[in-house]
Amino acid sequence: ERLDFDEAILCARKSDPQLTVIMDRVLAHGARCLMTRLEPDVFARMAPTYRETMDYDPVSRTAYLNWTPPAELEPPRIAVVSAGSSDMPQAAEVTRTLTYLGAATKQFIDVGVAGLWRLLESVDELRTFPVIVAVAGMDGALPSVLGGLVPGVIICLPTSTGYGVSNGGETALHAALASCAPGLAVVNIDNGYGAACAAFRALNMIRRAAAAPTG
Amino acid sequence: ERLDFDEAILCARKSDPQLTVIMDRVLAHGARCLMTRLEPDVFARMAPTYRETMDYDPVSRTAYLNWTPPAELEPPRIAVVSAGSSDMPQAAEVTRTLTYLGAATKQFIDVGVAGLWRLLESVDELRTFPVIVAVAGMDGALPSVLGGLVPGVIICLPTSTGYGVSNGGETALHAALASCAPGLAVVNIDNGYGAACAAFRALNMIRRAAAAPTG
Amino acid sequence: ERLDFDEAILCARKSDPQLTVIMDRVLAHGARCLMTRLEPDVFARMAPTYRETMDYDPVSRTAYLNWTPPAELEPPRIAVVSAGSSDMPQAAEVTRTLTYLGAATKQFIDVGVAGLWRLLESVDELRTFPVIVAVAGMDGALPSVLGGLVPGVIICLPTSTGYGVSNGGETALHAALASCAPGLAVVNIDNGYGAACAAFRALNMIRRAAAAPTG
Amino acid sequence: ERLDFDEAILCARKSDPQLTVIMDRVLAHGARCLMTRLEPDVFARMAPTYRETMDYDPVSRTAYLNWTPPAELEPPRIAVVSAGSSDMPQAAEVTRTLTYLGAATKQFIDVGVAGLWRLLESVDELRTFPVIVAVAGMDGALPSVLGGLVPGVIICLPTSTGYGVSNGGETALHAALASCAPGLAVVNIDNGYGAACAAFRALNMIRRAAAAPTG
Amino acid sequence: ERLDFDEAILCARKSDPQLTVIMDRVLAHGARCLMTRLEPDVFARMAPTYRETMDYDPVSRTAYLNWTPPAELEPPRIAVVSAGSSDMPQAAEVTRTLTYLGAATKQFIDVGVAGLWRLLESVDELRTFPVIVAVAGMDGALPSVLGGLVPGVIICLPTSTGYGVSNGGETALHAALASCAPGLAVVNIDNGYGAACAAFRALNMIRRAAAAPTG
Amino acid sequence: ERLDFDEAILCARKSDPQLTVIMDRVLAHGARCLMTRLEPDVFARMAPTYRETMDYDPVSRTAYLNWTPPAELEPPRIAVVSAGSSDMPQAAEVTRTLTYLGAATKQFIDVGVAGLWRLLESVDELRTFPVIVAVAGMDGALPSVLGGLVPGVIICLPTSTGYGVSNGGETALHAALASCAPGLAVVNIDNGYGAACAAFRALNMIRRAAAAPTG
Amino acid sequence: ERLDFDEAILCARKSDPQLTVIMDRVLAHGARCLMTRLEPDVFARMAPTYRETMDYDPVSRTAYLNWTPPAELEPPRIAVVSAGSSDMPQAAEVTRTLTYLGAATKQFIDVGVAGLWRLLESVDELRTFPVIVAVAGMDGALPSVLGGLVPGVIICLPTSTGYGVSNGGETALHAALASCAPGLAVVNIDNGYGAACAAFRALNMIRRAAAAPTG
Amino acid sequence: ERLDFDEAILCARKSDPQLTVIMDRVLAHGARCLMTRLEPDVFARMAPTYRETMDYDPVSRTAYLNWTPPAELEPPRIAVVSAGSSDMPQAAEVTRTLTYLGAATKQFIDVGVAGLWRLLESVDELRTFPVIVAVAGMDGALPSVLGGLVPGVIICLPTSTGYGVSNGGETALHAALASCAPGLAVVNIDNGYGAACAAFRALNMIRRAAAAPTG
Ligand SMILES: Nc1ncnc2c1ncn2[C@@H]1O[C@H](COP(=O)(O)O)[C@@H](O)[C@H]1O
Ligand SMILES: Nc1ncnc2c1ncn2[C@@H]1O[C@H](COP(=O)(O)O)[C@@H](O)[C@H]1O
Ligand SMILES: Nc1ncnc2c1ncn2[C@@H]1O[C@H](COP(=O)(O)O)[C@@H](O)[C@H]1O
Ligand SMILES: Nc1ncnc2c1ncn2[C@@H]1O[C@H](COP(=O)(O)O)[C@@H](O)[C@H]1O
Ligand SMILES: [Mg+2]
Ligand SMILES: [Mg+2]
Ligand SMILES: [Mg+2]
Ligand SMILES: [Mg+2]
Ligand SMILES: [Mg+2]
Ligand SMILES: [Mg+2]
Ligand SMILES: [Mg+2]
Ligand SMILES: [Mg+2]
Repeated sequence: ERLDFDEAILCARKSDPQLTVIMDRVLAHGARCLMTRLEPDVFARMAPTYRETMDYDPVSRTAYLNWTPPAELEPPRIAVVSAGSSDMPQAAEVTRTLTYLGAATKQFIDVGVAGLWRLLESVDELRTFPVIVAVAGMDGALPSVLGGLVPGVIICLPTSTGYGVSNGGETALHAALASCAPGLAVVNIDNGYGAACAAFRALNMIRRAAAAPTG
Repeated sequence: ERLDFDEAILCARKSDPQLTVIMDRVLAHGARCLMTRLEPDVFARMAPTYRETMDYDPVSRTAYLNWTPPAELEPPRIAVVSAGSSDMPQAAEVTRTLTYLGAATKQFIDVGVAGLWRLLESVDELRTFPVIVAVAGMDGALPSVLGGLVPGVIICLPTSTGYGVSNGGETALHAALASCAPGLAVVNIDNGYGAACAAFRALNMIRRAAAAPTG
Repeated sequence: ERLDFDEAILCARKSDPQLTVIMDRVLAHGARCLMTRLEPDVFARMAPTYRETMDYDPVSRTAYLNWTPPAELEPPRIAVVSAGSSDMPQAAEVTRTLTYLGAATKQFIDVGVAGLWRLLESVDELRTFPVIVAVAGMDGALPSVLGGLVPGVIICLPTSTGYGVSNGGETALHAALASCAPGLAVVNIDNGYGAACAAFRALNMIRRAAAAPTG
Repeated sequence: ERLDFDEAILCARKSDPQLTVIMDRVLAHGARCLMTRLEPDVFARMAPTYRETMDYDPVSRTAYLNWTPPAELEPPRIAVVSAGSSDMPQAAEVTRTLTYLGAATKQFIDVGVAGLWRLLESVDELRTFPVIVAVAGMDGALPSVLGGLVPGVIICLPTSTGYGVSNGGETALHAALASCAPGLAVVNIDNGYGAACAAFRALNMIRRAAAAPTG
Repeated sequence: ERLDFDEAILCARKSDPQLTVIMDRVLAHGARCLMTRLEPDVFARMAPTYRETMDYDPVSRTAYLNWTPPAELEPPRIAVVSAGSSDMPQAAEVTRTLTYLGAATKQFIDVGVAGLWRLLESVDELRTFPVIVAVAGMDGALPSVLGGLVPGVIICLPTSTGYGVSNGGETALHAALASCAPGLAVVNIDNGYGAACAAFRALNMIRRAAAAPTG
Repeated sequence: ERLDFDEAILCARKSDPQLTVIMDRVLAHGARCLMTRLEPDVFARMAPTYRETMDYDPVSRTAYLNWTPPAELEPPRIAVVSAGSSDMPQAAEVTRTLTYLGAATKQFIDVGVAGLWRLLESVDELRTFPVIVAVAGMDGALPSVLGGLVPGVIICLPTSTGYGVSNGGETALHAALASCAPGLAVVNIDNGYGAACAAFRALNMIRRAAAAPTG
Repeated sequence: ERLDFDEAILCARKSDPQLTVIMDRVLAHGARCLMTRLEPDVFARMAPTYRETMDYDPVSRTAYLNWTPPAELEPPRIAVVSAGSSDMPQAAEVTRTLTYLGAATKQFIDVGVAGLWRLLESVDELRTFPVIVAVAGMDGALPSVLGGLVPGVIICLPTSTGYGVSNGGETALHAALASCAPGLAVVNIDNGYGAACAAFRALNMIRRAAAAPTG
Repeated sequence: ERLDFDEAILCARKSDPQLTVIMDRVLAHGARCLMTRLEPDVFARMAPTYRETMDYDPVSRTAYLNWTPPAELEPPRIAVVSAGSSDMPQAAEVTRTLTYLGAATKQFIDVGVAGLWRLLESVDELRTFPVIVAVAGMDGALPSVLGGLVPGVIICLPTSTGYGVSNGGETALHAALASCAPGLAVVNIDNGYGAACAAFRALNMIRRAAAAPTG
């Protein structure tokens, strides 16, 4: 595959018949695919023949179609760090996407900066990860703090958690982009799939380098 | 005075003759006043008779007109904490306003979260201050971190430092307002004068309580 | 507790199972907690064993979990002033949070500036309060008027009341931040919990000063 | 004339030669005209033959070309009320435009709501005016307060005074539009000319009614 | 009454019990009132004893509580001009409010500028009205065209009709405010009540002048 | 050429040396090019050897490099209609670009809707043009009125003329896009070059059709 | 007809009775009309006598009232190119409107730039179309790529597909307007009807030219 | 060093004396540093003793203080791809920062999508780079096209090039974030320094993996 990873289906805004057509095409090729933004009620309405070939997770609203888990996984080299318990769905979309792509992850949850000590306890471990996905909504202060503490690739995933001037995630997005910590890289609000792909691009290049150490 | 503090003159957008008329009126009453947003070139154009009665500071762009420093000050009970060296003018406007009002301050500068250890070294001292002004631009993560560490009144002063999505201070403002740390209170972007007045209101009520302990 | 007050649970966007897990954890520790943004239908769906340990208020959408009212309260030193009868839910979130924290409040309702005389009648009483929370939506003119009349700490709580250019509370927020009255401090739109915490920080420092008058 | 008042020339963004062409055309017809947004340096560069036929005012940046003051004026029926001394240029554009159109005005300046008592002292007089122009920047609270106190036509002129979330006048504009006081009518930010024309439309209809009392 | 007109009740965002309390208070005083933004389902849920004293109109979503129509009306001096048939609810809120206040109106509907000839046919008649309310959404071009054709007071009521860059009425609002036609006065998006009050203020001053012709 | 028209050089934000390099490259190929956004002072600083090969127009800020006017032009089939005299520079950028591309234009200036009769006088002639460029700033009402009166292709060019809520052309842009007149096509604010290219694309297809009438 | 094409009915925001009145008027005149934004449930609620005279399509949400397909169509000269399968409803609104107006179209779907090769395969064919409608949401990169490859008229239809900073179509809209490809013309977000009308204006002028080749 | 790379000095908004103090501190430690946003005129005003220790580049506005180029560089593993010649300063800030950090780069300039063939010619080579920085302003379509063609880490650097709805880089930023190409990572507008640091984080992890191939 051109990009070393398969395309995913964004189910939001697609009608039931549209989804059926797409799934049939995938299954007809004996292929597999990842489905994102698949709401529980849409999944529930699907025919059992489809649901049997799917591994569905309601928290992340993702499904694996026609997918078999790999026999063995490398130890996790991607950390998924989230600020509040409200950011769980987005963090789950990241890990589910990476699992689908064959990359193990380790989660660090509820380590937002309002309770700084919880984050500080994990810093030494986080410094060993080559890639970190930082998930945060509201004021989005977590990526800035992380950015000053760890040397790896940091992918910031701003979330739409919050109200008022949180502006549906815009404040967290802007805080990550305007961070005074150097070298943070950012994806769209609530785009757990995109954050996972960005992390996976980095992991792939690291694997390539490890396989062919000259570069 | 109705509010227990004098009015200040916002010099921005006022013509030279407008400023002269106002200063004459103050001096005619034998009164004093604080002038803010007084640009160095505007100050330089003023007649020497005015400049002699003024204590001017170019960093904060403030002047004290017809002001005598108090014989003695209380020990500082307001801390002014700033994230980056670019936030100096706004932090200076806070301290200069408080000095004018007769309140001592202690400054903690360049303790932004990208260099978290500098901030952590000061936390124990900061916890002893009843009032803290937190000055930060760009991503504005400082107030969130402080808010989880100290129990006093926290006045957040977002600054227009930065570019791109910093949006002239809007991101720092929104980050302070949307903070997951509880009980942060916020003033307008670059409003060092307002932050000082908010801090002074709190200090006044604390003084009143200390003077009449029953409340 | 690090901040002299307990954490609250923001129930918005949390699923029923997530809330149950959190409540179990609180109860297992024999602890108490405040729950905010708890919608009536979510509360109604909870098992009776939980509901029996909760003091729920549908107007403010808050619940006290495992909480016993204090034997005695100080006389109120925090005033909660609201502009219109549409701002009732937010004003109630302020008072409920303060009650939970052990701080008595006095309410002044429907004293918006379009009916200025109602506000003016209360000014003398309001001047005796060391801390005032000003709740206002739409044009948000109340804080500016108050700010010119009373010397205490003023926490402005803009609300999302209104339509069109009220912009979900943004106009009231900006009016409070841009006020020509000196020293107003502002929290996020509809953040009654945050306004209460900011007021409580000030009250705590006042209590500390009253207890140890030297400062 | 179709609208009962002449067209004005908006000089901003017009080059010197463009202005000369327009003025020649007016003078060739023996006509008069009002010029707005005419900066002092543009005026200074004009040939003396033009400047002799002009009545120029640098505060409002307006000029009357080929205009003779009327022999006699009615007593003022339009009040121009402004919140701060920074709003002077806009208030002056209103009065200069109305003078040009032959309508007398009375000014009430520096009566912003942060100093509410100054405004309250004038309320009884203001209630006698059929038309009021309310000029205010920053938080724009003046129109809301006025709107609850006087029965006449109120034209709100928001100004670009202020910084940060004042957003170049947007906050004052939105506050006037979202006011809880009933029946305020609003013009564009800094549009003193437009506010004057709106006031003049009302005055004209009042004059028409007074001349032909049956309506 | 201080403003020569009664207060209205904005029913949006008020709970059923809140509305009942308010209505009881009005009825207890033998008073009347206007209720706006009263949705059909809220009205349907009210007890028959209330509904009997109410004159409800579902298009404008307004109700008159305890109101008797006046024996006789003056001929209409306020014209309500609307651009598209989608703007009907807002135009109806204007006329219903004015009817309640005792002012007759004449409606001109579906005269938007995309079908310019329909508007031009009415221009001569419209020039006889001292007050015009111009209702328009989407691009909001109607007020600009009217403003160049008629001499009376023009109150522009932008509506939230449209999608995409119509931005919930913001484009129509800005077009009215930025109009090149002189002297348009504008109210908040969808604020039919406010437009009616602004028109009524003008009508009142015209009546006052007609009654006491000297001014 | 792939697009049937040559590329232009956007001179804004290019340094003098950058421009020289580009011009040398064009001249070395014996080619010609159009330069846009070339400020008078930048042009004045260029070496005479360049200036001699250029046809520069300061109003539109365009230059033709190494260009010879065509011997003969078709009669104009593109009309350029502008609302106010402040929109002259943008209208000139349209006509200069089209002249460069070999397409004749006819201009209709100062026909904005506030003076509707001037526009109506030209409607019959405008209906004969297959392509019209409508140039308008501020409220941008001109395109909507035109759109209801003429059947040809209408390219709307919003301009940054105006202040306050004109928002640097955004209101005119949005009004054109949200127009209730069907089939208006719009380009970026102040993009006279782009409007000309869009008009030229239509003209080219019309020429192609006229040359090969079957389609 | 003045514009060479009939008016359409925008059904969004119209009540069932309003729609009935309009349809009766059309049918009473023996006329036909196009209805847009007609939701399936609204259509389903209509009386059978109406539904029998209608040709309804749920994907585009359009209906033809009292319409007979033309005996014969020209070969398609308008291409409708769409980026993703989520943009289907908008692309369908374009083709359905053009079919109603009697213009044949050819569709090119799912040719977004993330899978560039699918688009490149069609370029040669696309270059033969005089008019292209480019439908794209999210980042809206398709029009820019097309604009550099084909010489015909390009009408860009941005869609509201996407989330986060897609901002309901604003990013796709701005990308089309700010494109570095010359001569793109743009319509409002999701305005398939408007895109079709713009394309039809161009087709009409091409037909006129082909019929009367001299101009 | 905690992050494996040194801090840089953002010179924008710092006064000459502030910069001198910082440089003295660096030199006193025998350290080196990178200075960004150093305008030519600020550099020109510095004392020769400073300028001698600096390697200044006016295009990128960067200086290396007390820096010696490394003896030997690895072959470039970071590609810097830019869309237009107007994006040169930002692309230069990226390469200068990486050079300072000891990472070689290869540049691909003026390969924007409006001239798609130029980009396509380089795709095979670009696929060999583990890290790519994509620099683009205006519509920002380049990153989306690249994202579908190459497997490496892609850091998108939106630039403020353009006018009107380019909105100072916001459109390019949003287009990169909302891209339908999977796994793009984005930095703040014009933040060449940040893009370089993000690329360097990835390169460092790749180096670490190559050095210790097991992971
Ligand atoms: N061009 C740049 N853009 C964004 N951040 C920068 C840039 N140059 C330096 N920085 C960051 O800004 C910080 C310096 O801020 P300050 O304390 O104000 O000097 C450094 O630690 C860098 O991480
Ligand atoms: N109504 C509220 N508004 C804003 N913040 C709140 C509110 N209620 C609770 N919080 C804060 O949100 C945090 C909980 O976030 P979470 O980890 O998602 O449960 C708490 O620590 C509180 O500081
Ligand atoms: N005035 C203008 N407005 C918008 N785009 C322009 C303008 N002039 C030239 N262009 C486009 O900008 C491109 C030049 O970009 P650059 O490579 O930075 O010189 C050209 O290919 C034109 O398509
Ligand atoms: N889908 C649509 N999007 C934009 N405008 C439309 C649409 N459908 C119809 N229209 C226009 O809206 C006008 C109808 O407005 P109204 O008077 O409210 O029915 C028609 O004249 C059409 O030009
Ligand atoms: Mg938490
Ligand atoms: Mg620093
Ligand atoms: Mg009330
Ligand atoms: Mg004042
Ligand atoms: Mg219509
Ligand atoms: Mg004109
Ligand atoms: Mg696809
Ligand atoms: Mg180029």
